[in-house]
Amino acid sequence: MRMSTIKDVSRVSGISIGTVSRYLNGHKVKKENQIKIEKAIEELGYKVNLMARGLKTNKTFTVGVIVPSVTDIFSNQVIEGMEEILDSEKYSLIVCSSRNSIETEKEKILFLKEKRVDGIIMMPVSDENEHVHQLLSEKVPVILIDRLLDGVDCDAVVCDNVNGAYRAIEQLIQYGHRRIGIIAGPNNVFTARERLNGYVRALSDYKIPIDDSLIEYALYAKGGGYDGYVKLLNLPERPTAIFATNYETTMTGVKYMMENGIKIGEDISLFGYDNTDVFQMLTPSIATVVQPMNSIGEHAAKLLLQRIDNDYKHYPIVYRLKTKILSGTSIKKLI
Amino acid sequence: MRMSTIKDVSRVSGISIGTVSRYLNGHKVKKENQIKIEKAIEELGYKVNLMARGLKTNKTFTVGVIVPSVTDIFSNQVIEGMEEILDSEKYSLIVCSSRNSIETEKEKILFLKEKRVDGIIMMPVSDENEHVHQLLSEKVPVILIDRLLDGVDCDAVVCDNVNGAYRAIEQLIQYGHRRIGIIAGPNNVFTARERLNGYVRALSDYKIPIDDSLIEYALYAKGGGYDGYVKLLNLPERPTAIFATNYETTMTGVKYMMENGIKIGEDISLFGYDNTDVFQMLTPSIATVVQPMNSIGEHAAKLLLQRIDNDYKHYPIVYRLKTKILSGTSIKKLI
Repeated sequence: MRMSTIKDVSRVSGISIGTVSRYLNGHKVKKENQIKIEKAIEELGYKVNLMARGLKTNKTFTVGVIVPSVTDIFSNQVIEGMEEILDSEKYSLIVCSSRNSIETEKEKILFLKEKRVDGIIMMPVSDENEHVHQLLSEKVPVILIDRLLDGVDCDAVVCDNVNGAYRAIEQLIQYGHRRIGIIAGPNNVFTARERLNGYVRALSDYKIPIDDSLIEYALYAKGGGYDGYVKLLNLPERPTAIFATNYETTMTGVKYMMENGIKIGEDISLFGYDNTDVFQMLTPSIATVVQPMNSIGEHAAKLLLQRIDNDYKHYPIVYRLKTKILSGTSIKKLI
Repeated sequence: MRMSTIKDVSRVSGISIGTVSRYLNGHKVKKENQIKIEKAIEELGYKVNLMARGLKTNKTFTVGVIVPSVTDIFSNQVIEGMEEILDSEKYSLIVCSSRNSIETEKEKILFLKEKRVDGIIMMPVSDENEHVHQLLSEKVPVILIDRLLDGVDCDAVVCDNVNGAYRAIEQLIQYGHRRIGIIAGPNNVFTARERLNGYVRALSDYKIPIDDSLIEYALYAKGGGYDGYVKLLNLPERPTAIFATNYETTMTGVKYMMENGIKIGEDISLFGYDNTDVFQMLTPSIATVVQPMNSIGEHAAKLLLQRIDNDYKHYPIVYRLKTKILSGTSIKKLI
């Protein structure tokens, strides 16, 4: 059987080629026309749909996304946000996990190119940027999320990490804390560096000396920060508060304290990052820096679709979305 | 530049064509040979790898997975389990969400076929099975997870839902509960029906009459079960315990009780499903039926790879993995 074409759909449905084409490209058409077109497509065999769309526009209507882990809360919420937008435009999403490995990240990019995706949204695992340069030079639309790459001019959607961290530390200071520990992320991750910067800036602005023994680095992965908590809590002069800089390290802290009979909000204060319903349901509730995770995904998806449609206005655009502070009883007032 | 072939890799690496071929097909070869082959592939340009593998075997080394939502705990853990296996065999995973819609599920299947995946692992959204029949008739290897489809002979990995629910209800009965409500799932979902069966069986075995007013149906989605809790808690004769049959409905219950000042473990007992770290961290800790989520993914991936390699021994295989019970202070002893 020869492949069906837009002309066939037009003939069978009695709808003009232009309208069929607009429908196949994902634009809205009159409901009655849509019904006729869909009926014709069904008669001709559904495959015509994706095929014809590809033929007409040379697009696959597929977007690739690469995140360090498909199982963490942050990635999940961001992907949910993307899906909202992409789904309504009839794009499919190929989700890949780089498993926090730069090698895997590179492999997944090749994989997505092989699958002929129309564009890629990615959360880079490290500062390494050559492969992203390569992508951009090949004119593949790319949107970075959560993390910028030094030396790469590229569209991106990130949060104001410095301010998020700054405000968390500021609140702790206002509650009388002076000895504040931090579970910082890996030094080669943009987001982690920014949050550490926010911590340093807030302390400096309030004339509190930076004490290196209060800064612990950890992986942003499940169980990350465990060693850091052990060290901070066994210091001769223990901090009165600890700031955990992402969801996993916050979770590790809550678990560590519970398991060791350390009362959060009494024995030690804990400020977390990346709220989920969960932190507010705990006793005590955990104060957190909240990122608009869904919104990151939505912005990234919209911007990508714009680039796929060859609209490169104001390139490169970097959205910096605002974080907010959610208070909790995990912070003890010392004054 | 002409495309590199296995012969080129053999020539450059000095390793026999047979060994290169075995390596490219994902089999283990001696570490020293692997290094030489990888070096040769790198020199020739990485693309040879996937290409050659494809040429040689007609495979894409890609597996598709379709789950109702990419953001729920269950799907995530299952996918993580799959990745462990597939990654080590150098397969890539295309993750699709059917968004709890049978139409989307069908579209995603077409999408995955278009992407020429070697096989599909899917968690069907409903009892509708024609499209799965179609897939099987086209000799696409398919593994169902979590849910069986009536009238479809197909490999599958599911949990012993009936027993899981049975044992939860049994424990409640042993603690003196007689009036036990249930937030059951949608009636067109296999898993949900099985769990409801377990509830009914346990009550029957203990000669407790089934009271329809204690059975509420809910969507297995975020916020699912809210109306059910409202109804159960406002019954003239309130149940002393409620059994929530998946993660989301358990979460809804915890939130509802907290927001309405109802003390779990005192005013009412709550038995949940699908433990995460979180339920054990709450005060009180929530008793739950625990499914081996990672293991579901691992079993499904292994079985799929076997089928992709054309090993159809004992077809169809249905694994039924055991659940276990995790106790919690959310259950009050009435005796």
